[in-house]
Amino acid sequence: MNIIDIIEKKKNNVELNDEEIGFFVKNYTSGSITDYQAAALIMAICINGMTQDEILSLTMHMAHSGDVLDLSDISKNIVDKHSTGGVGDKVTLIVTPIIASLGIPVAKMSGRGLGITGGTADKLESIPGYNINVSLEQFKKSVLKVGACLASQTMDLAPADKKIYALRDTIGCTNSMPLIASSIMSKKIAAGANSIVLDVTCGSGAFMQDTAKAKELAKLMVLIGKLAGRKTICVITNMDEPLGRMVGNSLEVIESVESLKGNMEKDVKNVVYALCTEMMLLSGKYRDRNKCTSAIDETLSSMRAYNKFKELVANQGGDVSYLEDTSKFAVAPIISPVISDNEGFVEELNAYKVGKAGVNLGIGRLQKTDTIDYRVGFKFEKKVGDRVNKGDILAYVYANSPEKAVEAIEAIKEAYKFGPDELHKKDILDVVM
Amino acid sequence: MNIIDIIEKKKNNVELNDEEIGFFVKNYTSGSITDYQAAALIMAICINGMTQDEILSLTMHMAHSGDVLDLSDISKNIVDKHSTGGVGDKVTLIVTPIIASLGIPVAKMSGRGLGITGGTADKLESIPGYNINVSLEQFKKSVLKVGACLASQTMDLAPADKKIYALRDTIGCTNSMPLIASSIMSKKIAAGANSIVLDVTCGSGAFMQDTAKAKELAKLMVLIGKLAGRKTICVITNMDEPLGRMVGNSLEVIESVESLKGNMEKDVKNVVYALCTEMMLLSGKYRDRNKCTSAIDETLSSMRAYNKFKELVANQGGDVSYLEDTSKFAVAPIISPVISDNEGFVEELNAYKVGKAGVNLGIGRLQKTDTIDYRVGFKFEKKVGDRVNKGDILAYVYANSPEKAVEAIEAIKEAYKFGPDELHKKDILDVVM
Repeated sequence: MNIIDIIEKKKNNVELNDEEIGFFVKNYTSGSITDYQAAALIMAICINGMTQDEILSLTMHMAHSGDVLDLSDISKNIVDKHSTGGVGDKVTLIVTPIIASLGIPVAKMSGRGLGITGGTADKLESIPGYNINVSLEQFKKSVLKVGACLASQTMDLAPADKKIYALRDTIGCTNSMPLIASSIMSKKIAAGANSIVLDVTCGSGAFMQDTAKAKELAKLMVLIGKLAGRKTICVITNMDEPLGRMVGNSLEVIESVESLKGNMEKDVKNVVYALCTEMMLLSGKYRDRNKCTSAIDETLSSMRAYNKFKELVANQGGDVSYLEDTSKFAVAPIISPVISDNEGFVEELNAYKVGKAGVNLGIGRLQKTDTIDYRVGFKFEKKVGDRVNKGDILAYVYANSPEKAVEAIEAIKEAYKFGPDELHKKDILDVVM
Repeated sequence: MNIIDIIEKKKNNVELNDEEIGFFVKNYTSGSITDYQAAALIMAICINGMTQDEILSLTMHMAHSGDVLDLSDISKNIVDKHSTGGVGDKVTLIVTPIIASLGIPVAKMSGRGLGITGGTADKLESIPGYNINVSLEQFKKSVLKVGACLASQTMDLAPADKKIYALRDTIGCTNSMPLIASSIMSKKIAAGANSIVLDVTCGSGAFMQDTAKAKELAKLMVLIGKLAGRKTICVITNMDEPLGRMVGNSLEVIESVESLKGNMEKDVKNVVYALCTEMMLLSGKYRDRNKCTSAIDETLSSMRAYNKFKELVANQGGDVSYLEDTSKFAVAPIISPVISDNEGFVEELNAYKVGKAGVNLGIGRLQKTDTIDYRVGFKFEKKVGDRVNKGDILAYVYANSPEKAVEAIEAIKEAYKFGPDELHKKDILDVVM
């Protein structure tokens, strides 16, 4: 078997068998297949697609390319949650403490932001002292002690996925459904949770732009999960406009703290409750949806979820005083309002355009080596369905230079569309199980 | 402009403009675009194809990625000849001295063998002392002095093509028509000849397997040539079976010497005469096809072409005594006959299978770093149309080990097909101008 034959086969749109995919994953991870050979194969996969069997093979080989965590000594009912990424998506920061505060262990690895989608790892690191890079040993210990751990994907878990993911990003191959599904599921399978709830985002700010595609991806991941012996459910959520009011690293931590104190935006609340409910049901600890809702209400209003977040942050070295007084976070030097030139109801606040503008401000990275600025971002005063008059403040831009602020103001204005009618956004588009 | 956007555009099958293609060629040559990004783009090109405009852009940018030779101080009528490659294709070794002996200067750069197709550079190097790596200065001086020079493609000519060609070979992207056409024509344009005659091989042993495809490639190259201000003609020749009797490096030099002495196999003769005629007509020195034929006959029978070959070889340091007495060439330690188990007329002698078997023997390289053995190869006693009885010798295998000889004997037997009828092979399939 040699890699050139495998590449040519895929180039000619012929199905690869399990052995061939295993050969590629193993030898690319070890370095005996070069980056350029992998790039050619991945491009061929991107264009020609993959069969279900190929996707399953790729997922399992990537999952087993490194350690596969065994968390059974902690609990038989550990849940994991993952989002396919979005703009303003701080859901992990809210859901994790809620679930942990209800006595259900959460073991979650989070990635960094890349492209327009933010990354939980970056957001957490905006809290001074927070250590995202914990060892597997510490990871397990934290889940046992606090009931939750939010860590970065370590080198030992699914290293093949890590390598392929980084390569895809530099060769314009991020938005391939088989590659997205196998990447997510390989990490989840390696990370050891018994139950997996996936937030499949859908809309302008997501990988998947339409519901049919999102549903296809969801079905694929549910199938992979089942075949790998993990209970898997996908919630398809709306990512046409940014989630919540804040977009940016420390800004989203601030909004998360507010949410955990019970001040949750409507769209954030809908997504958080939907995901929490599925996690609670999958864990086996809850059987009734209504009881899930009241339990979430209770853990929020009693501040147990908020306190669990502080406990989680403290356990990983974070300075909790920033959560107790969010005004301690460093503030961007320039905060400019975006004034509306139009009037009417907000018909669209394009998450993709907001995401692009955010990357330019320094929220995220265009390249892996780019540095980010935790302070910058946006606060939206008007979202889809809101009534706007000329001269109203649409949003605030948090920037680190006047030039960037001016660029961002223009970009945000262009992200808005207005119309005569009040639209009602649907936050939960579907559930696939 | 950035390379990721360019890759994505091509991935989505959107036409690239001249500026984008220029950006890729320039920055890949300089090294600021990585091999894996180039690999991804090339795979997308391979699968999605290129428009005529894209192919022209790619060709011209590659041609101008290094020096573009100006040979106008030598002559206004320099001709170049190129083959798209085949098995047993020693035509350059025969055509070049014929044309030069007729007073038409030939300036030709030749490549090494890669995959199943042999390379003129390797064949020439089997002559002890022959120096294929001449400087551009020496190249021009040789054309002026001897009337011909057979040199390797130097680093200064079309370096972008050199880099892309090498990459294509390692990522299963050799058989793409736009990439083949632009690769050949960029080198020819940079090499400075006014007139270009292309031997487009077609059949099992060639890049192009069917006549329609070969014709498409031929038309494309003629068009590129015209737009670049070079008179270009393509002769489409049959490469279903190996050309001539010998396949191998020194074996093909020996057959070439025999051919120049007038002992030319029928298929070799048909191809040599067709190409020579087009070169002579394009040069402007001849206007009548019949006069071309008699001039070729005359230069061969008078030994002028043979003597020109010796002059050419001597000029580049080669030991001419090997040409005067070809028994001086080192002989493979094992020469085994291949005995026919069948009877009938030879219907097929599959050039691809012969080529593969040849690479295994050590004629060519699977990877650029493989070493080759000048001594090994095949001599065919029976070719398409020949009558065979059981027990007849079909061919001889020249091998450097008994194991390899046994493998090759089996492979050669499998390359033959027999039938009840005498087939007549057509050597020249078409001429495109």
